Amino acid sequence: MLINLALVLSSAYIITNFAPAAAGSGIPEIKGYLNGIDTHGILLFRTLIGKIFGSIGSVGGGLALGKEGPLVHTGACIASLLGQGGTTKYHLSSRWLQVFRSERDRRDLVTCGCAAGVAAAFRAPVGGVLFALEEVTSWWRSQLMWRVFFTSAIVAVVVRTAMGWCKSGKCGHFGSGGFIIWDISDGQEDYSFQELLPMAVIGVIGGLLGALFNQLTIYITHWRRNYLHKKGNRVKIIEVCIVSVITSVISFGLPLFRKCTSCPEADPNSGIECPRPPGMYGNYVNFYCSNKKEYNDLATIFFNTQDDAIRNLFSAKTVHEFSAQSLLTFLVMFYTLAVVTFGTTVPAGQFVPGIMIGSTYGRLVGKFVVSFYERLNIEEGTYALLGAASFLGGSMRMTVSLCVIMVEITNNLKLLPLIMLVLLISKAVGDAFNEGLYEEQARLRGIPLLESRPKYQMRNMTAKEACGNQKVVYFPRVVKVADVLYILRSNNHNGFPVIDHTRSGETLVIGLILRSHLLVLLQSKADFQHSPLPCESRSGTLPIRHNLTEFVKPVSSKGISIHDVHLTADDLEMYIDLAPFLNPSPYVVPEDMSLTKVYNLFRQLGLRHILVVPRASRVIGMITRKDLLIEDNEDSNGVELQSTSS
Amino acid sequence: MLINLALVLSSAYIITNFAPAAAGSGIPEIKGYLNGIDTHGILLFRTLIGKIFGSIGSVGGGLALGKEGPLVHTGACIASLLGQGGTTKYHLSSRWLQVFRSERDRRDLVTCGCAAGVAAAFRAPVGGVLFALEEVTSWWRSQLMWRVFFTSAIVAVVVRTAMGWCKSGKCGHFGSGGFIIWDISDGQEDYSFQELLPMAVIGVIGGLLGALFNQLTIYITHWRRNYLHKKGNRVKIIEVCIVSVITSVISFGLPLFRKCTSCPEADPNSGIECPRPPGMYGNYVNFYCSNKKEYNDLATIFFNTQDDAIRNLFSAKTVHEFSAQSLLTFLVMFYTLAVVTFGTTVPAGQFVPGIMIGSTYGRLVGKFVVSFYERLNIEEGTYALLGAASFLGGSMRMTVSLCVIMVEITNNLKLLPLIMLVLLISKAVGDAFNEGLYEEQARLRGIPLLESRPKYQMRNMTAKEACGNQKVVYFPRVVKVADVLYILRSNNHNGFPVIDHTRSGETLVIGLILRSHLLVLLQSKADFQHSPLPCESRSGTLPIRHNLTEFVKPVSSKGISIHDVHLTADDLEMYIDLAPFLNPSPYVVPEDMSLTKVYNLFRQLGLRHILVVPRASRVIGMITRKDLLIEDNEDSNGVELQSTSS
Repeated sequence: MLINLALVLSSAYIITNFAPAAAGSGIPEIKGYLNGIDTHGILLFRTLIGKIFGSIGSVGGGLALGKEGPLVHTGACIASLLGQGGTTKYHLSSRWLQVFRSERDRRDLVTCGCAAGVAAAFRAPVGGVLFALEEVTSWWRSQLMWRVFFTSAIVAVVVRTAMGWCKSGKCGHFGSGGFIIWDISDGQEDYSFQELLPMAVIGVIGGLLGALFNQLTIYITHWRRNYLHKKGNRVKIIEVCIVSVITSVISFGLPLFRKCTSCPEADPNSGIECPRPPGMYGNYVNFYCSNKKEYNDLATIFFNTQDDAIRNLFSAKTVHEFSAQSLLTFLVMFYTLAVVTFGTTVPAGQFVPGIMIGSTYGRLVGKFVVSFYERLNIEEGTYALLGAASFLGGSMRMTVSLCVIMVEITNNLKLLPLIMLVLLISKAVGDAFNEGLYEEQARLRGIPLLESRPKYQMRNMTAKEACGNQKVVYFPRVVKVADVLYILRSNNHNGFPVIDHTRSGETLVIGLILRSHLLVLLQSKADFQHSPLPCESRSGTLPIRHNLTEFVKPVSSKGISIHDVHLTADDLEMYIDLAPFLNPSPYVVPEDMSLTKVYNLFRQLGLRHILVVPRASRVIGMITRKDLLIEDNEDSNGVELQSTSS
Repeated sequence: MLINLALVLSSAYIITNFAPAAAGSGIPEIKGYLNGIDTHGILLFRTLIGKIFGSIGSVGGGLALGKEGPLVHTGACIASLLGQGGTTKYHLSSRWLQVFRSERDRRDLVTCGCAAGVAAAFRAPVGGVLFALEEVTSWWRSQLMWRVFFTSAIVAVVVRTAMGWCKSGKCGHFGSGGFIIWDISDGQEDYSFQELLPMAVIGVIGGLLGALFNQLTIYITHWRRNYLHKKGNRVKIIEVCIVSVITSVISFGLPLFRKCTSCPEADPNSGIECPRPPGMYGNYVNFYCSNKKEYNDLATIFFNTQDDAIRNLFSAKTVHEFSAQSLLTFLVMFYTLAVVTFGTTVPAGQFVPGIMIGSTYGRLVGKFVVSFYERLNIEEGTYALLGAASFLGGSMRMTVSLCVIMVEITNNLKLLPLIMLVLLISKAVGDAFNEGLYEEQARLRGIPLLESRPKYQMRNMTAKEACGNQKVVYFPRVVKVADVLYILRSNNHNGFPVIDHTRSGETLVIGLILRSHLLVLLQSKADFQHSPLPCESRSGTLPIRHNLTEFVKPVSSKGISIHDVHLTADDLEMYIDLAPFLNPSPYVVPEDMSLTKVYNLFRQLGLRHILVVPRASRVIGMITRKDLLIEDNEDSNGVELQSTSS
């Protein structure tokens, strides 16, 4: 208990005092980042350090949480640091890494980092690729798939090599179970029609318990946010410590109250010993049993590492190892612990707890199926696996990636159709109640994730209506420094249209300038000029005094704030010509475009601003598919065009 | 030979006389369809029928081609027919299916159909999902993933159930090999560092041979198109028949020249008999051998079903079964046959031939590795699998989906990192020479696929430059029927901007009208009016005399042509008000937007037309992420917003 407490305490201390952004799983924030929202501090170097050491404490401390979410966050942090050429604050930057210094490349790198995290956590490279594509990215390109795939392949090779070195057990738990963490390839091979009904039941249970889990965590997070965590860091640490003590007491105490069971008759073919030899991992744990040929079924899952507990729950050829009473006890206690632990200020993943909960009720259903259809070749472990899939499906609402991860961690491809079936049911049931865990948590944290589907009422709205009566703040092309400062202080818009006048006196929208770029300009003062006229040079190109890479917003550090800008009275009287620094062709939509279309544009292209403009008065030209096939226009004359597109 | 000839002849006859669009694999055309190009006839009901019966003939006739591509095409055809509510021509339409009648839903359904085809062909449901996402679709939404996943799950359950019924072999070859077609899960489990070098070599060979295959098929397709196939259907049929005769002669004749080898000592644990008992499938085929304890290694792969040949090549515990000479002979002959067969007028897939070619040189490399590193636990079958992956990677350039398919058809997850490695190398090597097989074939067929990455020179081009000096053909809002007819006849544009005048006399672009919609209007005549004035009704809404579902372009039938429209002289003097029928908010871009941006817009949203308009004179508003979170605006006041996006 004391060791657990010490570990958890160290984790909570690191998080509260050093890296507050490292609390929780980090997946909602990463999802938000890839959706276009920068949550403060989520990719800092200190967050990375806090996440690594914090999860060592929280996972090692035996809390009801997993290491998978934190590993995803860790991967994303590393990727982001590489993407901005190391961290400048700690003097770890490298010049050649600066090639990645663009927003888009960095987002791609972070996506790869997420995939690497999942691939490393589950030793599931394909699952990692799919997780990154299905769960975290918002827009998707084939090049990205190729890059993510490459990352995952490297992870797989490295993990395998490392496990080869650790073969003889000299690295502790690392590598236990081999490359396939919970191998059940020797389990059930076939299934009959009658089994589909109990499997569907597992799907329904998974959907219900998953949705309930999401709902309870919403309530508890809300309560923590509005009440408990407002009282300061000390309360946060005490809370975690109490949870740790309760977890230790329950994990150790409950199995003590459970009577030991005598071992089943040994089957020499299965290779499973009862009770397991001391110092080994496996089924049939002898936990303070009076007789040497007895084992404690509750201790086999409760007083154990999570990996080993799951392996025991998934195990085949161990029919009737667990009593219904023990499974039910464990389910209720662990479910409660998982709900209570969720949202405390330690790094915490929800994958492994989900698998634990799911496999418990799955095994419970499996027990009934085994006793009901006596003659069939049914393994309780198969049902445990399906249960795990169903709970994760019911809570996180992933489909393809979860399916592939489940197959990759258990190495039983023949169960794939069943996993798919169970996932479909549990996701559908869960969707009837609430949204997925990550979406709900993102919403609670105020991260405005754009869902993939526009809301129904957008169909009847136009772009103009969405802008509301919000006043547009313009900049002229050449603007006085004092005006810039005033405008930036008076609102918190992130982008401003820039207007110029033609010689005939008409106004013309010439682009969009970002707040962050204006701040860089104000801070450096290099581009201030005395004349209120545009600074056309004789050669026709505009002189740019700034190195353009300075404008790339550093995600992993805080960026410039308006309070960092210090200007003299002389500076305020000067002017800036914005033309070289603006985005000359922001995306525009006509005022009466349907909001559904605008939404799709926004999400598919990952935009942050769209300008709403009046209907055009004339059309200069039309671009069709053929106009975009530049290279082919020259040599395709000989090819007869069968397509009807023109 | 005669049976093969008869089967192939029937296939070629069906294709040339009944369903010409069913020739080849169909994947480039489907890819084009989902990219936004309708190739004529590709999704017709007769194409479906031709594809099914044609591939029975061509695959059954023993040609060097596979059934996987045709199955993908078949799936897409079925999906498209469901999507337009059955086929009207053959009176098989159903009213309730008409709910799918929108372009977008039909494209989604076709994507699902492709996934179902792959899932059924390889019994690889996850592979099917990934194939559809990686290879065929151009744009991608999470809802689509969920739907595709559902389709694949159903396919998996149905295939498994069907195989359960056929267990005792009463359905012939169907179900042979079980749900995992080429199970090698009892093969090599581990690999050492030294093996990575020969595996990398396999990757390089795969890239080279794959690129060569693509290049040779380009030449031969070009030659066929410009020379041979211009001579009519009879030449096409004769060509296929000659290929069939050659294939039969080589498959039967070459093994005859090969001396038989005496059987290796029997290993009772492996369960492999030598020679295999008559009427069974498996290794060690006795083919006209004088001694009963002998087998013919060339016949084991050449005079065999393709499925069984691949199983033999992948098989473990059969070291030195094949001589290098036989493997080399088979490789050269089969490679040549596959190149020659590609592009003949029969339905043909390239997956299985690719696996055959790849596994042959893979096994060849494996032979050398086995003799070089004598002490290691190396299986030649592992190298055969990697060879297959490398050739497919080098030719088709798929990554994630191919990887998952290879794992799903062999059930050996532990080889996944190796498959990934080999694929990465072979794809990289192949990319150095030419594009993927499907892209090259699409280009040859004049299907203007938009690649995922814009061309480099687009960076310095503007939208206006892409339009060139092409004249824009306008329609006024109310247009004379004679003018419509004249304009439609004088060009072959598919979309026309519509211009209206405001009361102050300014022109205004009010939308885009499609050629196909104009043709429907001309044919039905229901909306003709005598007055040249807009037909505003008193209630403010426009009276629509047409059922809007009439405008959905039927993909699976030919659609209306300008020649189908018959108008009297009276009709020509009447007017149409286009306002109710146009697309009121087509996507527009300012004239000086970078073409790279336009390209991304085009591809990500799957557009067919973009209007290029002058720069806007003013900005009505800005839409940011927050404006699109409609639902949350009301109840999110209590939530503190941590994000910096505003």
